[in-house]
Amino acid sequence: MTANRAWTLASYPSGWVTEENFKLIESPAPSPGDGEVLVKNLWLSLDPYMRGRLSQQKSYVKGIEIGDVMTGETAGEVVESKHPGFKPGDKVTAPSGWQLYCCLKGDLLTKVDASKAPLSYFLGCLGMPGRTAYFGMKDICAPKPGETVVVSAASGAVGSVVGQLAKAWGCRAVGIAGGKVKCDYVVKDLGFDACVDYKAGNLFENLKAACPKGVDAYFENVGGEILDTVLRLMNFKSRIAVCGLISDYNATESYGVKMFRAILVNRIKVQGLIVFDWLERYAEGNKALLDLVAAGKLKTRESVLDGIEQAPRGLIGLLKGENFGKQLVKLA
Amino acid sequence: MTANRAWTLASYPSGWVTEENFKLIESPAPSPGDGEVLVKNLWLSLDPYMRGRLSQQKSYVKGIEIGDVMTGETAGEVVESKHPGFKPGDKVTAPSGWQLYCCLKGDLLTKVDASKAPLSYFLGCLGMPGRTAYFGMKDICAPKPGETVVVSAASGAVGSVVGQLAKAWGCRAVGIAGGKVKCDYVVKDLGFDACVDYKAGNLFENLKAACPKGVDAYFENVGGEILDTVLRLMNFKSRIAVCGLISDYNATESYGVKMFRAILVNRIKVQGLIVFDWLERYAEGNKALLDLVAAGKLKTRESVLDGIEQAPRGLIGLLKGENFGKQLVKLA
Repeated sequence: MTANRAWTLASYPSGWVTEENFKLIESPAPSPGDGEVLVKNLWLSLDPYMRGRLSQQKSYVKGIEIGDVMTGETAGEVVESKHPGFKPGDKVTAPSGWQLYCCLKGDLLTKVDASKAPLSYFLGCLGMPGRTAYFGMKDICAPKPGETVVVSAASGAVGSVVGQLAKAWGCRAVGIAGGKVKCDYVVKDLGFDACVDYKAGNLFENLKAACPKGVDAYFENVGGEILDTVLRLMNFKSRIAVCGLISDYNATESYGVKMFRAILVNRIKVQGLIVFDWLERYAEGNKALLDLVAAGKLKTRESVLDGIEQAPRGLIGLLKGENFGKQLVKLA
Repeated sequence: MTANRAWTLASYPSGWVTEENFKLIESPAPSPGDGEVLVKNLWLSLDPYMRGRLSQQKSYVKGIEIGDVMTGETAGEVVESKHPGFKPGDKVTAPSGWQLYCCLKGDLLTKVDASKAPLSYFLGCLGMPGRTAYFGMKDICAPKPGETVVVSAASGAVGSVVGQLAKAWGCRAVGIAGGKVKCDYVVKDLGFDACVDYKAGNLFENLKAACPKGVDAYFENVGGEILDTVLRLMNFKSRIAVCGLISDYNATESYGVKMFRAILVNRIKVQGLIVFDWLERYAEGNKALLDLVAAGKLKTRESVLDGIEQAPRGLIGLLKGENFGKQLVKLA
């Protein structure tokens, strides 16, 4: 019988996540019941939202309990199916958690066409992060051609798609990222008009220079001082999509946003965003993103760790901004 | 020749406004030129937004320069007209400033029907504060019947209208105000379902008890700790209209909003609001408000100071929350 390996939660972190918060357990791979499908996971996606699950504080969904398998999306291959919609060999994405095998109801799986793009892309620019960027841009940032769109964590899984959508829609795309290497990548490889290195100091002056007409739409992944700085440059009737506040996730005390007044003065619209809110329109987002990949207008970069053992280390690095591109763990 | 008296700006305040920031000057009353109207002001409105004008910092409109007459809305009577739309005896509201007489282009005046309501009401519940409440509620808070609407500065010119609109539209109306007297007035005279005294301590617990189903819409006039507290009670997909942040206006250092994360977690929509943004729809707001006054569903309370000499003192008291109801100065 095949052995499954799974990361479970050993303890809740206080402040930064550590490897001691997780425990790797082994068990036999499960067998599918009626309507279920056994998936062999090939790729595990690591995403900033996972920090929110490692807490008993109120967030969009319930936190994980001690002993539970860690939450996570995987891409994999069907091994055995007791659901009419799936057969062995089908490629799927699944809310499997951090493990090598999972048995899930067929309704929870999404079949993907891995002939059109690498399977791992369906966890990144063609998956949850890509759809997050697409719907946040389309419905909240709603930029008009010629407007300036700023995105933080610009080299990340969501940010990189946001800026490329801005370019595809005729806008000026300006990124914020940490370090020269990421900034160069964002401009040279992804085609943003500019990218400001927040680690280099003088963020306000540098961002102002990169946005000579101010900021019409801001896609926020980071929060904290970066948010306060961008708020000073937001234009009249501009929009902010609040997708993530990663700078706060590990803080034991919340950052106080000092420029809230800009929302009043410039009549800014600020809206929180979780991709689940657009569940009924996923097909629209998937098609738009796949078309852009096919047209060569949506590039992606992956940061791959090898082996399920690496998953906790990968999440910790992601939360510290050490990854460079979409963070994945190759499981097989 | 009639003498005019006008308050001008003597110096910019740092922190709290003081009487020394203003200077009362006398001059002959002006004479109207072609297309102009001479108005004798009977009432001067004092409003929190005026604090923003006493600054060279960027705000919705340019600040006042040293020596300029203080900005303000008045209600008065036409004395002499060189504009075909106005004749002596007409009652008008005007962006006159803090003075006894003004000469303005007829286009800048609004004729009001003082047979339907007291003239001073057109500076309050039937004027700028009333329209601010109406459009902020209608277009940003957009409450559905049965939802809970919270408003801060609930006994004030804007807040009192917000809560009465909430009741008229079938919602639960909960106010926040300072002191038992104001809270009693908001519930007993204005008909709110509840009003929480922020000066009594335990704001979070008391507001939670007053909002057993959480908060669906929040009309913000105050900011600071009150905003942070209400953010903890906001429901999924709730709305916040940011109309004022009076707690910040006199602060030399901005308050840091710690619960910004709630916007993400609960996908709250936050939007800044200035009534000018609805200029083309003023007639709709005016009619709706006048209908409510006629039906006895929109009550108001005025805090009247007698004589133009009192204007600086009135503004200072207003910024400290010492007024009780719409702050006016009776000029004649």
